[in-house]
Amino acid sequence: MTSPLSVIILAAGKGTRMQSAKPKVLQTLAGKSLLAHVLDTCNQLTVDETIIVHGFGGDQVKSEITNQYTQSSFTWVAQTEQLGTGHAVKVTLSDLPKSGKSLILYGDVPLVSCQTLAALKAANTDGMSMLTLTVDNPFGLGRIKRDQNGNIEAIVEQKDASADEQNIREINSGIYCVDNALLHKYLPELSNNNAQQEYYLTDIVKMAVADGITIVAIEPEHTFEIEGVNNRQQLASLERTWQRKVVADLQEAGVQFADPTRVDIRGSLSAGQDVFIDVNVVFEGDCTLGDNVYIEAGCVIKNAQIGNACYIKPYCVIDRADIGAGVDIGPFAHLRPDTVLSDNSKVGNFVEIKKSTIGQGSKVNHLSYIGDATVGTGVNVGAGVITCNYDGVNKSQTIIGDNAFIGSNASLVAPVTIGDTATIAAGSVITKDVDSSALAFGRARQVQKNDFQRPTKK
Amino acid sequence: MTSPLSVIILAAGKGTRMQSAKPKVLQTLAGKSLLAHVLDTCNQLTVDETIIVHGFGGDQVKSEITNQYTQSSFTWVAQTEQLGTGHAVKVTLSDLPKSGKSLILYGDVPLVSCQTLAALKAANTDGMSMLTLTVDNPFGLGRIKRDQNGNIEAIVEQKDASADEQNIREINSGIYCVDNALLHKYLPELSNNNAQQEYYLTDIVKMAVADGITIVAIEPEHTFEIEGVNNRQQLASLERTWQRKVVADLQEAGVQFADPTRVDIRGSLSAGQDVFIDVNVVFEGDCTLGDNVYIEAGCVIKNAQIGNACYIKPYCVIDRADIGAGVDIGPFAHLRPDTVLSDNSKVGNFVEIKKSTIGQGSKVNHLSYIGDATVGTGVNVGAGVITCNYDGVNKSQTIIGDNAFIGSNASLVAPVTIGDTATIAAGSVITKDVDSSALAFGRARQVQKNDFQRPTKK
Amino acid sequence: MTSPLSVIILAAGKGTRMQSAKPKVLQTLAGKSLLAHVLDTCNQLTVDETIIVHGFGGDQVKSEITNQYTQSSFTWVAQTEQLGTGHAVKVTLSDLPKSGKSLILYGDVPLVSCQTLAALKAANTDGMSMLTLTVDNPFGLGRIKRDQNGNIEAIVEQKDASADEQNIREINSGIYCVDNALLHKYLPELSNNNAQQEYYLTDIVKMAVADGITIVAIEPEHTFEIEGVNNRQQLASLERTWQRKVVADLQEAGVQFADPTRVDIRGSLSAGQDVFIDVNVVFEGDCTLGDNVYIEAGCVIKNAQIGNACYIKPYCVIDRADIGAGVDIGPFAHLRPDTVLSDNSKVGNFVEIKKSTIGQGSKVNHLSYIGDATVGTGVNVGAGVITCNYDGVNKSQTIIGDNAFIGSNASLVAPVTIGDTATIAAGSVITKDVDSSALAFGRARQVQKNDFQRPTKK
Repeated sequence: MTSPLSVIILAAGKGTRMQSAKPKVLQTLAGKSLLAHVLDTCNQLTVDETIIVHGFGGDQVKSEITNQYTQSSFTWVAQTEQLGTGHAVKVTLSDLPKSGKSLILYGDVPLVSCQTLAALKAANTDGMSMLTLTVDNPFGLGRIKRDQNGNIEAIVEQKDASADEQNIREINSGIYCVDNALLHKYLPELSNNNAQQEYYLTDIVKMAVADGITIVAIEPEHTFEIEGVNNRQQLASLERTWQRKVVADLQEAGVQFADPTRVDIRGSLSAGQDVFIDVNVVFEGDCTLGDNVYIEAGCVIKNAQIGNACYIKPYCVIDRADIGAGVDIGPFAHLRPDTVLSDNSKVGNFVEIKKSTIGQGSKVNHLSYIGDATVGTGVNVGAGVITCNYDGVNKSQTIIGDNAFIGSNASLVAPVTIGDTATIAAGSVITKDVDSSALAFGRARQVQKNDFQRPTKK
Repeated sequence: MTSPLSVIILAAGKGTRMQSAKPKVLQTLAGKSLLAHVLDTCNQLTVDETIIVHGFGGDQVKSEITNQYTQSSFTWVAQTEQLGTGHAVKVTLSDLPKSGKSLILYGDVPLVSCQTLAALKAANTDGMSMLTLTVDNPFGLGRIKRDQNGNIEAIVEQKDASADEQNIREINSGIYCVDNALLHKYLPELSNNNAQQEYYLTDIVKMAVADGITIVAIEPEHTFEIEGVNNRQQLASLERTWQRKVVADLQEAGVQFADPTRVDIRGSLSAGQDVFIDVNVVFEGDCTLGDNVYIEAGCVIKNAQIGNACYIKPYCVIDRADIGAGVDIGPFAHLRPDTVLSDNSKVGNFVEIKKSTIGQGSKVNHLSYIGDATVGTGVNVGAGVITCNYDGVNKSQTIIGDNAFIGSNASLVAPVTIGDTATIAAGSVITKDVDSSALAFGRARQVQKNDFQRPTKK
Repeated sequence: MTSPLSVIILAAGKGTRMQSAKPKVLQTLAGKSLLAHVLDTCNQLTVDETIIVHGFGGDQVKSEITNQYTQSSFTWVAQTEQLGTGHAVKVTLSDLPKSGKSLILYGDVPLVSCQTLAALKAANTDGMSMLTLTVDNPFGLGRIKRDQNGNIEAIVEQKDASADEQNIREINSGIYCVDNALLHKYLPELSNNNAQQEYYLTDIVKMAVADGITIVAIEPEHTFEIEGVNNRQQLASLERTWQRKVVADLQEAGVQFADPTRVDIRGSLSAGQDVFIDVNVVFEGDCTLGDNVYIEAGCVIKNAQIGNACYIKPYCVIDRADIGAGVDIGPFAHLRPDTVLSDNSKVGNFVEIKKSTIGQGSKVNHLSYIGDATVGTGVNVGAGVITCNYDGVNKSQTIIGDNAFIGSNASLVAPVTIGDTATIAAGSVITKDVDSSALAFGRARQVQKNDFQRPTKK
């Protein structure tokens, strides 16, 4: 039987240097709050209880996270005073099981991986394991002091480190996996008898050593996994590091990026074979690309499914759209939520589509607004066509049958249905349904006045 | 009493390696000419006289700078022959006061800071101070030779440097603060008895040392402050360095950049709390952002004020607009000069607005051109609406009253006034004023011809 | 008489790590397949025969290259088994002349320069020359072992290298120039008696040394010339290296880039004096820019000629257009193939033009679609004007005479001709030709219904 696993996430800090009205753990990295990164990682482990220690802006944290994770339950513990990391963990004791183990994590250390946490948990064979890292420049960080057998004996802070200890390059990440029994034993014994008058979590290391416990150290695969965020520069820098990692993984899987440093993936991107992504494309949310998808410069794509062999020209903005195979889009197309583009359809420049389905092989190529519409197959929507879906208070539907031809600059005043194979003359305002195979027009006869004198300069 | 301060700016070089028809000091860095950078920095000090030594393209320099700085007066001195930096300063002597001090600056060293110049001036306690820098690779640069007491004794050029002197890493920037009396004394004594047959300004250092003057050296905070521009690569590289500095300052103040290396700020940007700026945004001129402004990818924003909690979607181009609070803009909106968007208004995709005011809560959401118009509060402007403001020679005004509803694809032929709460039917061409609360339409009745035979392939 | 020159390009590899359905040599770098890069470079030399060894996806390679190089003839040799580089060259022997020299190149080493190849050929004075490079980190690469006279004696592979040999920093590129007589002699003698059971081309070095031939080594000017592509990361990285080189050359020639790392030039770009290119511009194909061209952020320009003093605002997409002098374009203009913009014309925002000529000084400023049209000089095309060029099956022409004025939101139903100086009233649908100097309109009279009750919320 696996030992029960708790997760304790310290998320009480204000993050003064962020200069923000928001608590630090709600700042976003790659489109997701720092705390949500940690929660999502823990979600990939089998966790029995997640305890979040909140403090500054605690209501805001609780409210945002609760709204976001409607399927999960968290134990919220308030740390009303900021008396150090040891104190932060101590306030969880009344909610912490007496047995099992706990991972101690940080809401502002967002990128620790579940592989690392699983390894950390597995390494806790004698009651305590910890995440350490060997770095080139350890200055300012707590050093891992080991005895002659290589066993951890203490964590030495920078200010207390002897010259020899300052040369130690293995540093403390602050992330631990500890038996709950030990937390219940050690935390009440922590003292704040130090310069900062804080309760340091690191003191549990020496307590464990004194109890003869062998503390196992694990190193994460990537340095960024233990990097914390204290200011805007660190946040931006950590995001870029993360982006490079995400892009490298996609390159490994065969995606071609025109410039790996000029793409943003904020969420999940899954891509088929021989996908090309040009410079400055931004993905948000969950996006899926089929095989042979070609995306040109500057597209912004959120929560979209894009089928095989789609060609997306520069500067398309796509949000919550479902796009079939062989679809050509853009440049300058704007697909808004609940747009469905069927196979081999085309959406051209300066076209906005929302809450509409465009049928197979249909074309909306220029300067159109299609909203609340169902467009059949093989339809040609001319330039400048507008579905007038809004009368000031209500939205209404436009239905266009298969193989209809909508002339340029036509206005289709919804609710209205255009029959199959019907033709709408250019410039018409259509307010009544049009029968199948009919031609409808609503426009004045052309008249001419000869030798017209145009206005002259006032 | 403070000693009077002159500034002498050497701005006579051609900049052959720029391969340009423009004189080098008019090349732009971050949207401003190199020379204007220096002048703006000096503007932050109390300067009694600014002498600009011009040569190549002097008329062009004088004309551009005079037009740009209508409030300032400069003393323009022509250096008709290029006989070295010493000669360039010497030609200013007839315009230079006999007493006081002078800062000697360069029109192609654009980023020296006013803090550095103030410190340089303050350091001139014995007649001469200079700006030096300790660098890793001093090759090619004049070295600062100091005696055993650490006092400056000479500047040694690369070609004259002994092996020991070549190891000196403190280098000469060329920027000085010198008592005018010394300039009047030393400059006439300069000789061009050297390989280049040029008059070197650096020779005043040894003259001062010979006179027993203690020359104080100041180091600038940033290396870029003393970097000069000789070719396009240096110009681009110095601009990137400057951009990183500007961005870092804004990060320090709490602005979140999605990618600090992918943003351009050419001018001044002031930002409130919790502002987010996505990738590839470009700012020009003077821009102000309120709190909680969110700017998505690729926006180009020039001389705009943007109120609290505005949300600007990707690829908006905004030039000289005044935007209230809570305004949603874009994507693909184009706001041209003299656009005013009142609080909580919305401007959507493929909309162009110029010389127009959009009232509180009003919406112009799709494919519209609004020019020379005053739009009241609570107005809905439908998709494809166009203000026909131009008759080929004159521009006319369109007035739209509060709570009016302008149907899609309507053409409002200016001058025209639409009354409060009036309704314009979709597709109408409106050439006469419309009364308040009235419905106006101007469109033909819809007719239908059954079993229409569409054209066939020729 | 120059000795005849053959080129042998090894292009048979699959490139498994690309994770692609395409053979590796057809992957694109800077808009051109890897193999085409090599072929274009060879095109600049005088080559008598080009032999391409194809294998994986050979039909696809042959078909794409044959279609692309209709003027060239290549000898295609199939390598049906992948038995090593020596084997790949050996299969060409039946097509290889007995005399003359051969350059041995690689379809996945795309950026070797013609200068380097010319030097390599010239260096082959004794039968064999090779391209080597001295690198900082030679790990994994074949080392060039030289005797005490500095003559090449062998290539030592990493796994066979002694400690001393591992310190050698001169490495083998795999690129050679060899007398055909030697290839005919040595290649049949190659053995696959090694761990990989492959025939190594490198073995010809020791054969030549044994024959007393002095092998001359040449180093390329740039490291990237000998870099091969095996995965998506290497491909992207080599492309960025190449882009930096292309940009640096243009900077040297006087082009100003706002950010040299944020521009893509995929093809050839020639630029006049004082050209400015803002961030994130992408060029493809062959583009020519005149003097004083100013291109703002994010433009995507393919195969276009752009005249002097054109000003291109942000986010224009231009494909196969011919643009005169003094033309203002954008923002958000889309010029499609066969667009001709005459001098001093203007194309504004949300305008699409294809297969059309816009006359001198004419303006199409807002929200228009102009297709299959000839627009005269001095014409004003109002906002929202659409040429209805398509009836569902056929495309027709629109002709607009000089100085005509096309009112906003007009629909011109092609085929149609608008005479010189004619005026089209706003909102008109024009289906018949309009005489010169006439005013044409086709719109209903405006009527008003007072005290209209707008719909209320359902």
